[in-house]
Amino acid sequence: METSNVNRREFIKACALSGVAATVSASTLRGKDDRKVRLGFIGVGGRGSGLLANCLTIPGVEITAISDVIAANLSKAQAVVEKAGGKKPAGYSKNEEDYRNLLKRDDVDGVVIATPWEWHLPMSIDAMKAGKYAATEVGPANSIEECWELIRTHEETRVPCMMLENYCYQRSVMAILNMVRKGLFGELIHCQCGYEHDLRGRIVQGKGTGIELKEGGDYRSHHNRTRNGDVYPTHGVGPMANCLNIDRGNRFVYLTSTASKARGLREWTLDNLGREHPAAKTEWAMGDIVTTVIKCHHGETIMINHDVALPRPSPAFPSIGRVQGTKAIWEKSVDGIYVDKRSPGGKWEQFSKYLAEFEHPLWQRYTKEGVRQGHGGTDHLSLSDFVASIRERKPTPIDVYDTASWMVIAPLSEQSIAAGSSRVDFPDFTRGKWRTNKPIFGFQT
Amino acid sequence: METSNVNRREFIKACALSGVAATVSASTLRGKDDRKVRLGFIGVGGRGSGLLANCLTIPGVEITAISDVIAANLSKAQAVVEKAGGKKPAGYSKNEEDYRNLLKRDDVDGVVIATPWEWHLPMSIDAMKAGKYAATEVGPANSIEECWELIRTHEETRVPCMMLENYCYQRSVMAILNMVRKGLFGELIHCQCGYEHDLRGRIVQGKGTGIELKEGGDYRSHHNRTRNGDVYPTHGVGPMANCLNIDRGNRFVYLTSTASKARGLREWTLDNLGREHPAAKTEWAMGDIVTTVIKCHHGETIMINHDVALPRPSPAFPSIGRVQGTKAIWEKSVDGIYVDKRSPGGKWEQFSKYLAEFEHPLWQRYTKEGVRQGHGGTDHLSLSDFVASIRERKPTPIDVYDTASWMVIAPLSEQSIAAGSSRVDFPDFTRGKWRTNKPIFGFQT
Repeated sequence: METSNVNRREFIKACALSGVAATVSASTLRGKDDRKVRLGFIGVGGRGSGLLANCLTIPGVEITAISDVIAANLSKAQAVVEKAGGKKPAGYSKNEEDYRNLLKRDDVDGVVIATPWEWHLPMSIDAMKAGKYAATEVGPANSIEECWELIRTHEETRVPCMMLENYCYQRSVMAILNMVRKGLFGELIHCQCGYEHDLRGRIVQGKGTGIELKEGGDYRSHHNRTRNGDVYPTHGVGPMANCLNIDRGNRFVYLTSTASKARGLREWTLDNLGREHPAAKTEWAMGDIVTTVIKCHHGETIMINHDVALPRPSPAFPSIGRVQGTKAIWEKSVDGIYVDKRSPGGKWEQFSKYLAEFEHPLWQRYTKEGVRQGHGGTDHLSLSDFVASIRERKPTPIDVYDTASWMVIAPLSEQSIAAGSSRVDFPDFTRGKWRTNKPIFGFQT
Repeated sequence: METSNVNRREFIKACALSGVAATVSASTLRGKDDRKVRLGFIGVGGRGSGLLANCLTIPGVEITAISDVIAANLSKAQAVVEKAGGKKPAGYSKNEEDYRNLLKRDDVDGVVIATPWEWHLPMSIDAMKAGKYAATEVGPANSIEECWELIRTHEETRVPCMMLENYCYQRSVMAILNMVRKGLFGELIHCQCGYEHDLRGRIVQGKGTGIELKEGGDYRSHHNRTRNGDVYPTHGVGPMANCLNIDRGNRFVYLTSTASKARGLREWTLDNLGREHPAAKTEWAMGDIVTTVIKCHHGETIMINHDVALPRPSPAFPSIGRVQGTKAIWEKSVDGIYVDKRSPGGKWEQFSKYLAEFEHPLWQRYTKEGVRQGHGGTDHLSLSDFVASIRERKPTPIDVYDTASWMVIAPLSEQSIAAGSSRVDFPDFTRGKWRTNKPIFGFQT
C-alpha cells in the first residue's frame, strides 16, 4: 500500500488546494500518458467483462485482480487478460465477501464494480475504505442512509468514487452540454429524461443477458419484485444534472413520484411462458411506469420517466431527452433542435447540423482518434476518465456527490410513491458546498 | 320558453330512463335530419366567429342571437349570418352582463360560448339556468367551487352542458380510442399528453389573435399573469380521459403539479419589444413549464405538460400524445405505433398503416362526406354533435362531468404548486356514479 498511501496523501493535498475544475481531463485519450494504473474488477458478468475488454485497450492499464462469485466468469475474464498479453490477474471467487480480499491487495490502485445493483454502493464504500479509487456501474441506491455512508466514507478517506454513467459521455449529450455552456439555450428551464426500454424478457427470464438467475430473471429482477420507484434514474438524470450544474451552484430540492399499476411483466409471462411457468406466480412490486418530477433550487424542473415493463421498439440509446431554455429546445425523439431567431421557418432543425459548431472538445478529439466499441464509444470515455483520474491523482469528473445525488432518486421516489406521491426533499449531500462548488464534468486542460 | 320547456321535460324523462350511451351520435353529419336548431352565440371574436361560420354549414341550424362586448365583433358576425342567407340575429353588446338578455330569449335552444376563459363556466351555468343547452369553449376552471356549481346547476336543471373539446374529435385520437376499445392496447397503463405551443407573442402582445387587449396580450394573458398552474389541460387530457373511461368506470384520484420558474415571456419581451416597452414591466406568475401527474382509480397514470412560454416550432396540433398499454404503445411525436407480436422487427410502424383497420366509424363517414375546415375538421364534428344533442334532446357526448373533471385540473394544479407540489385529491363530481356510468363519447347509433 506504500505507493497508494503516498499518492493518497498527495491527492488530499491537491484537494485541499482545490481549484480542480479546470484540470479534469480524459488525458489518456490523447495516448501520451501511459504511466501504469493497476485495476481490480469486481463483477465480470456481461457488463463487467465488456468494461474489462475496454480497459485492456487503455494504455498503461494493468488488470491485477478480478473477483466474481461465478467461477466461470472469473476464469473467462482471467483468460481474456492473458490473451491480451497481460499477466494472469489474481482471482477471488470463494463467496460474496471474497471481493474484500481483492481490496486488501497492494497492487490495486482502483476497482471497477459491475455487480448486481444492490452491491454497487456497499462495494464502493469498501473500496474507498481500502484506499482504492472506486468506479461503480450505474443503478439505484438501496437507501438514503447508504448514500450518506458513501459520502461520509469519501469525506473521511478522501478517496474518489465515480459512477460510470456512460450516458453523460454520449456524443449528442456532450454537444448539448457544450451548447448550454455556450449560452445557446439561454437560461435553462426544463428537462425531460428517463429510461424507456422494453426489458420484459430480461426481467422475467434473464433472456439475452447471459445471467439467468435461479429464481428467474437478471440483476434487475429482484428490484422489480421488491421495490416500487424509479430504480434506474441515472442514465436520464446524469446528463441533465451536468447541464443544470447540480451540486455545483444548483441542487435538486424535492421530487414527487407516481407509479402506475404493475401489469406488463405478468402479462408478458402469461403470453410468452404460459400460466404454468413458475414466473407466472411472481408478484411484481414495481409499477410499469414511474413518473418523477424534480424541482431544482434555481427553479428548473426535470421530468424523469422509468418505463421498462411495457412493449416498445428498441432504440439505440433507450433514454428520452429534452432540454428547454429561454432561447432553444432540444428534442431527442425527433432528433431536432430549435433555436429562437436562428432556426428558419419555425421548424425543427436536424441536430446533426449543429454538431460541427458545437461538438464537445472531447468528442472532437475522440472522433479523430477513432471511436471505440461499447455503447457508442461512451464506455471507453468514462473508463478513460477514471483511469486518468487515478493516474494523475485527481478527482473523478463524476464524483461521489453526483453518484449519491443521482442514485438517491431511487429510494426517494419509492418513499414518495409509498406516501401517495407526496413531495420528498433531497438530502444535501454537499452540506452547503453546492453553493460554491464549480462544475467539473466535461472541462479539460 | 314553451317549446323549450316541453323539450326539457322530455329530456329529463329520457335521462331518467337512462341507457343513453348507445344513442349518442353525430347524426347531423349524415345530413338526414334538418329539424331546426336555434343557437345563440356568446363571444364572436377570433374563435367564436370561426365556430359561427362552421355552424352555418350544419343543416337546420339557425343563429337567432349573438352577444359580444365588442360592438364591431357583433355587427361583423351578424353580417356573416345574413350573408349566409339567415335572418339578422338579435344583438347584445351593451356590457359584460348583456349576454343574460340573450339567454332570456325564447328562440334560443342552445348557446355556444367562446368568451375569455374566465367567463366559460359562469356563462355555462347561466345558460343551463335559462334552460339552454350550453356549449363552452375549452379553458381552465377558475376554481373548484365553480365546477361544483356547474354540476349542481346541471343536476337541478337537467340541462346538458358540453365542452367543445375539439381535440377529442381528431382523426388520429378517435382511431386510438377505437383501438383501445377493440383491445389492441391490452390493458391501459399510462398516457402522456399536454399542450406544447409557443404562444409568447400572443400572450405578451395578442400578436396574431386579432384581439389585442388594452393591458397587452390576449385572453390567455390575464391567466398567465395571475395563476401558476396548468391552465390549459383539456386538449391533452380530454382524449386520454375518453380512453381511460374517466367518470365512467374509472376516475382521476389525485394529482401533483410542479412549475418551473417563469422566464420565457419576460425574456421574449426584452428581446422583441425592448426594455422600455410597457410589457417589460409585467410580472408573470405562471411557470414556463408545468408538469402534472395524475393517478387514476384503476392504477393508470397520466403525465400532462403545459408549455406555452418557451421557443419551439409550431406543430399542426400542439399537443403531445402517448398511450401505453400492456400490448401496444402509440407515440405521436414520431407518428408511430408499436404492437406486441404484430409490429415487425421491433420498430415503430407508421400510424397511418393502422388507420384502414381502426378508423373510427365517425371519421369513416366524415372522410366520405368531406372534411370541413376548422382545426382539421374537428370543430365541425364537435359542433355537429352539440347540435344533434339539442335536436334529439339527448345528452351531449362530452358532458358536464367531463367538463368539470377536465377543467378542474387547472385550480387543482395551482393548489398543488402553491403547496410545493403536494398531492391534491380530485373531487368526485359524479358523487359515486362513476362506478356505474357508461362511456358515451364516440359511440353512435
